[in-house]
Amino acid sequence: MEIKELKDPHQLKNCSIDELNELCKEIRTFLVENISHTGGHLSSNLGIVELCVAMHVVFDSPTDKMIFDVGHQSYVHKILTGRAQQFSSLRQYNGLSGFQKRCESVHDCYEAGHSSTALSAALGFALSRDYNHENHHIIPVVGDASLMSGISLEALNTIGEKQTPMIIILNDNGMSISKNVGALSETLTKMRTSQVYNQTKKDLSDFLNKNQTGKNVYKTISNVKNSLKKSVVESSFFGDFGLDYLGPIDGHNLHQLIVTLETAKHHHGPIVVHVCTKKGKGYSYAENDCTGKWHGISPFNVRTGEVLKKIPDDYTSWSRFISSTVVKLAEKDEKIFALTPAMVAGSCLDEFQERYPSRFIDCGIAEDHAAILSNALACAGMKPFLAIYSSFLQRAYDPINHDIARMDLPVVIGIDRCGLVGEDGPTHHGCFDIQLLRSLPNMILSQPKDAKEAQDLLFTAFHQNHPFAIRYPRGNVKICNDKMESIEIGTWTEHKAIETTEIFVITYGSDVDTVVSKAKTNSLPVSVINARFFKPLDTKMLDRIASFNKPVIIYETDVLAGGLSSAILEYYNDSQQKVSIHRKGIADHFVTQGSIAELRKAEKIDLNSLFEKVGELL
Amino acid sequence: MEIKELKDPHQLKNCSIDELNELCKEIRTFLVENISHTGGHLSSNLGIVELCVAMHVVFDSPTDKMIFDVGHQSYVHKILTGRAQQFSSLRQYNGLSGFQKRCESVHDCYEAGHSSTALSAALGFALSRDYNHENHHIIPVVGDASLMSGISLEALNTIGEKQTPMIIILNDNGMSISKNVGALSETLTKMRTSQVYNQTKKDLSDFLNKNQTGKNVYKTISNVKNSLKKSVVESSFFGDFGLDYLGPIDGHNLHQLIVTLETAKHHHGPIVVHVCTKKGKGYSYAENDCTGKWHGISPFNVRTGEVLKKIPDDYTSWSRFISSTVVKLAEKDEKIFALTPAMVAGSCLDEFQERYPSRFIDCGIAEDHAAILSNALACAGMKPFLAIYSSFLQRAYDPINHDIARMDLPVVIGIDRCGLVGEDGPTHHGCFDIQLLRSLPNMILSQPKDAKEAQDLLFTAFHQNHPFAIRYPRGNVKICNDKMESIEIGTWTEHKAIETTEIFVITYGSDVDTVVSKAKTNSLPVSVINARFFKPLDTKMLDRIASFNKPVIIYETDVLAGGLSSAILEYYNDSQQKVSIHRKGIADHFVTQGSIAELRKAEKIDLNSLFEKVGELL
Repeated sequence: MEIKELKDPHQLKNCSIDELNELCKEIRTFLVENISHTGGHLSSNLGIVELCVAMHVVFDSPTDKMIFDVGHQSYVHKILTGRAQQFSSLRQYNGLSGFQKRCESVHDCYEAGHSSTALSAALGFALSRDYNHENHHIIPVVGDASLMSGISLEALNTIGEKQTPMIIILNDNGMSISKNVGALSETLTKMRTSQVYNQTKKDLSDFLNKNQTGKNVYKTISNVKNSLKKSVVESSFFGDFGLDYLGPIDGHNLHQLIVTLETAKHHHGPIVVHVCTKKGKGYSYAENDCTGKWHGISPFNVRTGEVLKKIPDDYTSWSRFISSTVVKLAEKDEKIFALTPAMVAGSCLDEFQERYPSRFIDCGIAEDHAAILSNALACAGMKPFLAIYSSFLQRAYDPINHDIARMDLPVVIGIDRCGLVGEDGPTHHGCFDIQLLRSLPNMILSQPKDAKEAQDLLFTAFHQNHPFAIRYPRGNVKICNDKMESIEIGTWTEHKAIETTEIFVITYGSDVDTVVSKAKTNSLPVSVINARFFKPLDTKMLDRIASFNKPVIIYETDVLAGGLSSAILEYYNDSQQKVSIHRKGIADHFVTQGSIAELRKAEKIDLNSLFEKVGELL
Repeated sequence: MEIKELKDPHQLKNCSIDELNELCKEIRTFLVENISHTGGHLSSNLGIVELCVAMHVVFDSPTDKMIFDVGHQSYVHKILTGRAQQFSSLRQYNGLSGFQKRCESVHDCYEAGHSSTALSAALGFALSRDYNHENHHIIPVVGDASLMSGISLEALNTIGEKQTPMIIILNDNGMSISKNVGALSETLTKMRTSQVYNQTKKDLSDFLNKNQTGKNVYKTISNVKNSLKKSVVESSFFGDFGLDYLGPIDGHNLHQLIVTLETAKHHHGPIVVHVCTKKGKGYSYAENDCTGKWHGISPFNVRTGEVLKKIPDDYTSWSRFISSTVVKLAEKDEKIFALTPAMVAGSCLDEFQERYPSRFIDCGIAEDHAAILSNALACAGMKPFLAIYSSFLQRAYDPINHDIARMDLPVVIGIDRCGLVGEDGPTHHGCFDIQLLRSLPNMILSQPKDAKEAQDLLFTAFHQNHPFAIRYPRGNVKICNDKMESIEIGTWTEHKAIETTEIFVITYGSDVDTVVSKAKTNSLPVSVINARFFKPLDTKMLDRIASFNKPVIIYETDVLAGGLSSAILEYYNDSQQKVSIHRKGIADHFVTQGSIAELRKAEKIDLNSLFEKVGELL
């Protein structure tokens, strides 16, 4: 079967096990080859090739609803539902999404980019089905780390109560993005190695020995259903949620998978099918990864496993620079703790974890819990640093408001991946946090223009007594080894391109230097203001700017509504100063996927677009 | 012992059981008497009188840290820690808080008003204690409904992993605010009636029979510790989280409680003490309540149980009017579902639940899960109505962004208790949701000025295809029985006091009519604009207003930063219209507790304050 000729998953139903196994091999090669060019979520998809194939053999998509939690483990599903030909455009501008996407295919019934939504979503589809007296199947696929997050557990609680039929596939690879944490992961490990597993394996091997490979599994399945019924056992954990349990099953054995899913399909009520998979299966570099490097990977050399895009020697990622600075600060200040909701690798907290294990906490996928825990540490006199991606910080909004800001405690929040993030697209852009946090009393919100300012902001944050958030984007920054200094909170800086000023550009982050540089190159009378604090604003500087009576461009790289320019408009209005303000920023829509350069151009927040405006106003 | 003379909980340690039981009786009388005047959370506090007394007998506050989840079950703790004399000011302006409050007492180590934060907080205190080689006890008290919420389960997961000692008191009254939901509540019920309970009871009764009442329990406790060790059993549910378990225990038996807590105190690692209590214990009206009426109660007549403040016949609560309208709409439209995160009573969804049980879902304390579930129902073609308090909607921000707004699905969100709520104070004011939701693409955000507009907005919301949120406050509204009509989305209305207009007041909600009425009474040339949509804005109306070149007051009753006036400033700026705008609203701080009238006055957002400004500008 040619992968690119797969149009409809029903084609799989007539294949023999041998053919399906062959297909799985081809899919793996296809995935490695394609993702080596586009980058993407490799490991999790390699891990569920057989599972996805088995799902499409046993169930009838799109009538039956397959919901892949987080959505980035849907590549195989995309291939099987006729989208292989578009894979060269995966995660590119105007290309195939790296997540399930309703507009892409009827086979994508729901969408996600954040974890742990699949069970609640599945319940919605199931209750609607029941209410409308339909009888299709609902099959959410949830990873083990995702399942232990609060939202998933809340959903299990309602699913167990409603007893509506659904087949919950627990894709258990024993890992989060990196190592799993939490007591429940121990419980899963126990299940994984339980007697039931062995019993089930025996049942299956008995069955398999009686059958020749190459036989059409689908047709023979009904004969063995009864022999498997007894493997539906009481799992104490899932049982407490009112759910039946089937497994654990070898997730790379197509026979086992098909037979088991077929059994689950005929089960009454909600059932968990525990499928053990190996992340990265079939590609040795990914298979042997335990740090999470291969979870989401940039383009790489298939043979050597080396990532193609090298960071220059004097550069490092923003995350790495921030985390190294926190390590330096923690060396001298024994009260500094570091916390992450399951993002040790992404937030580069590995070094902190290694050096100060007793001051490091990985909370698992639990942003709200991590925020409250950070706040309580601060309340007890410690100095917590909570690293959290901007788009996931959205999950911690309430504790940041109700706990951290309201109690006015010195929690330092590192808002990673702020602004546009590129290929991960609309669910991952971190462009809403300014409006979220600037309206919170007591909160300090900042963003450094470079590494020097980043370390100084961190230094400042750990030497004061209020909630202090520091945003930093995806991408790299030139390393700085200067001494750390304190920054006066709420102060901005001015950077003139030439002696005279005919126009002000207020911006923030690394755009400060690029705007200055371009203005200098073109000898433009532009004064660039580094608005390194979104809150509090530098009102002295704003007063001074107003006094010049020159046009002001506020150049934002986040959502306009309620953001920095909104704060400045409020200030000028309330202080009755008239200033001619021109705003650039993300308009009222969700931004698609693509390279950051492409997206900025499309959103008219690229340098060219800015300088066009400058030209107009000069 | 005179309740008002209680200064320090150590006083309790020398009391006999008889004296303590007598004290419990007095506390109950005191609570009923006081709350009958002030209003407040009666039932949950009546339920844990003995538990709180036992906690203070066994543990040493403030060295040992007692954290009451949600905080509204801390009244007895307040009484025992020297705050009885202030109880007449409970929940009043400048009075005693209805929640734990750090500035009130050293015995309040953490604060909360939202549920399910106590375990994460306890973990923060515990990890800080361990790191600093201290050895005090941490005692979070968590209700059964709260424990089943995602954040609590996430916290249990980390607590079980860290194995840091803490005594988790599960205050199990078998109820949320009203009836408990979810499969886990079944599991708890099983535990409650398990063999262990009976065994423990027997052990304890053996012990108690050997002892005379009146003996100093504290001193004799060590003799019986061993006899109780065996009651620390494997509970499968808590065991899965790596936690030991002790119980269930009769929460109204002081002897049992003290002995059990003493045992737990000497236990290594984290342990759950399962205490069965009766909500409302000792006050028959509250004890027999199963609707949640007595959870948070207004001032009442102690003898008859009747609430003092009557709603006039032609008025009803906003929540009731909205929910009745949804019932009416659901009569004609079989696709309408209603969902609530554990607020059946508060959101008045009892009628919907009774009439359309198959279309009603109580998700438990799980705002994020409820929002995703609503969205999936919409995705499957249903028409969900999600009723959620503004302050708790903060917990659902991410799914409202990532799921509902991004997928642009017609979920109707009823934002209950918006604006200032009064006596519940800073954790409950619903004054941040405008900035949260107005920056979300695809979102429609509205607030009706009266019942007619409320029903029309609901009617409109259920006849269109985008996320549609409708805010409504605490308090009452004059009932309307008119026919429902559609409202053009994004349109405002104008209400002139007299023929001429010298000033515009843009406002929303019930303030529209009160401002018009006062302006009419005083024959002021004020035109009041009913900004019933925060998003989209009525830009035609805004253009028209600008053309008059008159001063405009934007009179907001929510947080200013990023709110309605901010949106209007953005619009006028971007459309290059110069308008003289004066903003009134909540400044950059958390608003305290008190009556809404007092708070409005303090925040300068009362009518007098508005009309002072009008006077200045005329």
